[in-house]
Amino acid sequence: MPRRLDRTLAVAAAALLVLPAGTLPARSESDPGLVATIAGLQQRALADDTAIDLLRRLTVEIGPRFAGSPADRKAVEWAAAALAALELANVRREPVVVPRWVRGAEEGRIVAPHPQPLVLTALGGSVATPPEGLTAEVVEFDSLESLEAVADVALAGKIAFLNHRMERARDGSGYSATRPIRSRGPSVAASKGAIAMLMRSAATGSHRFAHTGATRYAEGLPRIPAAALAVPDADILEAQLAAGAPVEFYLALESRRLEDGLSANVVGEVIGRERPAEIVLLGAHLDSWDTGSGALDDGAGCAIVMAAARLIARLPKPPRRTIRVVLFANEEFGLSGARAYAERHRDALARHALATESDFGAGPIWRFATRWHPLDLDRAAPLAELLAPLGIDSFGNTGRGGADLIPLRQVGVPIADLTADGTYYFDYHHSEDDTFDKVDPRALAQSVAAMATLAYYAAEMPDPPRRVPVGETQ
Amino acid sequence: MPRRLDRTLAVAAAALLVLPAGTLPARSESDPGLVATIAGLQQRALADDTAIDLLRRLTVEIGPRFAGSPADRKAVEWAAAALAALELANVRREPVVVPRWVRGAEEGRIVAPHPQPLVLTALGGSVATPPEGLTAEVVEFDSLESLEAVADVALAGKIAFLNHRMERARDGSGYSATRPIRSRGPSVAASKGAIAMLMRSAATGSHRFAHTGATRYAEGLPRIPAAALAVPDADILEAQLAAGAPVEFYLALESRRLEDGLSANVVGEVIGRERPAEIVLLGAHLDSWDTGSGALDDGAGCAIVMAAARLIARLPKPPRRTIRVVLFANEEFGLSGARAYAERHRDALARHALATESDFGAGPIWRFATRWHPLDLDRAAPLAELLAPLGIDSFGNTGRGGADLIPLRQVGVPIADLTADGTYYFDYHHSEDDTFDKVDPRALAQSVAAMATLAYYAAEMPDPPRRVPVGETQ
Repeated sequence: MPRRLDRTLAVAAAALLVLPAGTLPARSESDPGLVATIAGLQQRALADDTAIDLLRRLTVEIGPRFAGSPADRKAVEWAAAALAALELANVRREPVVVPRWVRGAEEGRIVAPHPQPLVLTALGGSVATPPEGLTAEVVEFDSLESLEAVADVALAGKIAFLNHRMERARDGSGYSATRPIRSRGPSVAASKGAIAMLMRSAATGSHRFAHTGATRYAEGLPRIPAAALAVPDADILEAQLAAGAPVEFYLALESRRLEDGLSANVVGEVIGRERPAEIVLLGAHLDSWDTGSGALDDGAGCAIVMAAARLIARLPKPPRRTIRVVLFANEEFGLSGARAYAERHRDALARHALATESDFGAGPIWRFATRWHPLDLDRAAPLAELLAPLGIDSFGNTGRGGADLIPLRQVGVPIADLTADGTYYFDYHHSEDDTFDKVDPRALAQSVAAMATLAYYAAEMPDPPRRVPVGETQ
Repeated sequence: MPRRLDRTLAVAAAALLVLPAGTLPARSESDPGLVATIAGLQQRALADDTAIDLLRRLTVEIGPRFAGSPADRKAVEWAAAALAALELANVRREPVVVPRWVRGAEEGRIVAPHPQPLVLTALGGSVATPPEGLTAEVVEFDSLESLEAVADVALAGKIAFLNHRMERARDGSGYSATRPIRSRGPSVAASKGAIAMLMRSAATGSHRFAHTGATRYAEGLPRIPAAALAVPDADILEAQLAAGAPVEFYLALESRRLEDGLSANVVGEVIGRERPAEIVLLGAHLDSWDTGSGALDDGAGCAIVMAAARLIARLPKPPRRTIRVVLFANEEFGLSGARAYAERHRDALARHALATESDFGAGPIWRFATRWHPLDLDRAAPLAELLAPLGIDSFGNTGRGGADLIPLRQVGVPIADLTADGTYYFDYHHSEDDTFDKVDPRALAQSVAAMATLAYYAAEMPDPPRRVPVGETQ
């Protein structure tokens, strides 16, 4: 863990351990009971091994768990058993139909001018190449825009190489700039006549892992095979291209779609003492890509919401409304679980007081933001103050919610974001290297403390925040 | 690059750029011409891109170059052309017969209690498993000694798992403690009845790369398949074993030996002006494992000795004796080039005034040591002083020489070691991740400056060091 984060955590832990509850910020003192309860939750969270133990077990006993795979079904059973063991109520599996896809064997190499095998992996959902593979000349683009700008037949019979370098950033903003290449690139390339697409992995760092992730073929265009090169391999391809001679590339992918399969959203609750029908939803997704162990994406998120709910379940008195943990099925390959949840609970969405999702690694949390009604912003301020001792800054009403919350956001459910430090997240994201050893137990525990704070506060507010106006920015 | 190394380099560079030659250490002033020449070499080396350019070309145009492979043959041609382009004399390929081995497909997974695929790779020279693979229970050992201690049939039908954690160290000393597991482990395991061996990679860091390296089967024992697990994968296997239930593992390796092939030592020289028959040998090895690009191991070494020789070749006056660059064939899989060199030049070994090898990454150099006759140690002191402005400390007469120098050391050729900082070397060594991006151009240039200093000094000494007594410690 980088030294800066070390310091942040140490400061936060020290502050919590020495401050009696009465010294917490003034605006929260309107409810000293709430403040004391949350201070206690934070202290217990920072000393609690539940999350790291859950994550160790998930990665050791299950590992990669692509939606609809045998490991995904095992993960569903594992999660339901774990929620029950944590003494959550109403533990259940809500069935979700999921698309299935398998990666199969894959191979890529430069054929000319200087033959060399390169590390790559298919984008999620990519079609296969012909069984014998394909060989074609590579044409390089530095952005999706520059690919879009060429004439419609410019790439006839060629391979488009999208060679954009993702920027490292604490808030992960480099990903937003890179992801469209992965999702839209293959169809844009196909619209120009390309027979395959390669991209520099949407990744920071420089290790020899190819980073996968879902692509989406547009209707009415040829579906061409698409793969991501590891960063050092994109460097090699770039260097051969820079020398000026035509570069021929061989690509063979065996990936294919299977029939739809069955998975489940796994749910557990802390039943509210006064308003049990009102829901504070703590989301994460249980599925992972097939490459790594899904430790950061999103085993950590599962562990965080599970451990936070457990701490609240053990309070002498439950909060006013119900806290619902939802471990969504198949976030990675089409948000199946998110859509199924919104469909199944359609009539209850108006009673969802708040939703949050943990899907950005293992912490520490450095940023808090809401997506609340403008008239409710004052009501979020005490929550921000309760999070501040954990080293978390408030970013106002700029929240967006995780991908699994899109259907809830679309109907105006208030959202809160606890954003983890993403400086190194994309070194590992969607690659083989997303494994348990990348998780710092203290950062994970701080994330649990933040999540417990948010969950308890939202579940204990006398009235829930108003519905959020659904505008064009949704 | 870690900040500490940054500082070391900055200090060294600053010292060189501001100090006129006359301010170099007093003991060297006995020959102000020598001191001035070496100061000039160092300054030019630190500003020279030759080494990094050579390394970029080698990794982009050739890449992995396992002995006897088509890429190895290309590398030989490339190196001979590069030495000629650097204007070295007597550029030649001295043929070397090399053993050949191919890795083939490989697969490993835990079958029970919790199935999960793991990342592994065959040790160099491993035999294959049966085509259908093998499945057996895993028995864990923390050291070669604890494996040696069990009864002779203790592992009948089982897989031995050598789970030693390699220590990170600047001098690479953790490798010496780990390498015997890789070289001797399979035969020790076989002597106990094991049908396969797995080991935690001889690696520092925690990325999902399996680190290969040569194993040696002992005569008279069954040859069992052997593979290294990536560090995070060894963690997973360890965790499942720690839970107490028997762990079954599936292993499939297709690796196999091929008929011997042909490679070459590639040689180039700066002809000495007074004693051309006396040789200062600058060695490195041209071959690499088949996994990475061989950037650190040992493309960097090749680039360092080539660039250092070029700088000396461009001096107005060549040094007294001949500097000979030797890029050895097949260091990794049996030291074929080293043996062939000693055989071919047997009659000239007595005229080898000094030998050094660069085979420990891309720098910076932090340590200088000799293996000279005890009566000559005073004669090494001025050289140590000339290296000091580069941030290099003297470690006296503790030198060993690289692996390719073993045959020379055995006949008493004086050795000098310039040891690179190895703190991070074993994060990459023998893995897919040994690629060009891991090299810091400034550290590489500092290594060239050190190599040029050593080479010129040794070639310019009025008389060569005495032969080194060949004792039991050889």
